[in-house]
Amino acid sequence: MAKAKKHIGSANEIEAAFYEAIGRADIDAMMALWADDDEIVCIHPGALRLVGHAAIRQSWEAIFKGGGVPIHPVQLHATHNMMTAVHSVAEEIHLPQGPQTDFHVVATNVYLKTPAGWRIVAHHASVAPGRLAAQQPVTGTLH
Amino acid sequence: MAKAKKHIGSANEIEAAFYEAIGRADIDAMMALWADDDEIVCIHPGALRLVGHAAIRQSWEAIFKGGGVPIHPVQLHATHNMMTAVHSVAEEIHLPQGPQTDFHVVATNVYLKTPAGWRIVAHHASVAPGRLAAQQPVTGTLH
Repeated sequence: MAKAKKHIGSANEIEAAFYEAIGRADIDAMMALWADDDEIVCIHPGALRLVGHAAIRQSWEAIFKGGGVPIHPVQLHATHNMMTAVHSVAEEIHLPQGPQTDFHVVATNVYLKTPAGWRIVAHHASVAPGRLAAQQPVTGTLH
Repeated sequence: MAKAKKHIGSANEIEAAFYEAIGRADIDAMMALWADDDEIVCIHPGALRLVGHAAIRQSWEAIFKGGGVPIHPVQLHATHNMMTAVHSVAEEIHLPQGPQTDFHVVATNVYLKTPAGWRIVAHHASVAPGRLAAQQPVTGTLH
């Protein structure tokens, strides 16, 4: 019951649960956060676009074979309305060899409020040049 | 008036207007399609994330110095609700030297319905490996 309640949470909670599930390589927990829609899209950095649950699940299963990936989303910029949250984050990836200095990863995460609660419909991550620059996190509301 | 009406159009119309404006290097027409929000985000392929009107405008002005860019969005996958449209497209870029064979560009475009009509809140484009594979366009509705 606690698990079901958690999934009814806000878009922010879904985003936190998404990165937590990636961190512990929990494929079922991560896939449960996606909308029940054939048109969900996931783009890993530098990779082909994946559409739908089967393709997206398969890609994360392949990633999780190497274990969880400790990603900390930072520098959130957000626009939203009652039914939607559009998050832009930088993904701070904690690798054993230390922080990357020649690139960083930015991601667009889109959440829609569905009958089952807030769910992910799009995760688009890509590589940007250079070290992640310091920036104050800001959030805004569409007016 | 015709112009104002056009901007009240659907997300699909805003997307068409966006790529048309890029094709003719019309900075004012393109910027008018974005939401009036400080948190709008634009990511060009392989480039740093840009947040807000000033930074986004400046980047497109730099691109448009080389003239318009003929981009044809194809292979749309879409999720939406009453207030939001999340589009994933491949960007077919018509370069003088012919089609790229070693990479293609995918983009996530997010539109929110604002008091002024449908507007862009996020454009995230990135490079994917290989030639764009043939695929039937499909659209879906979140249920």
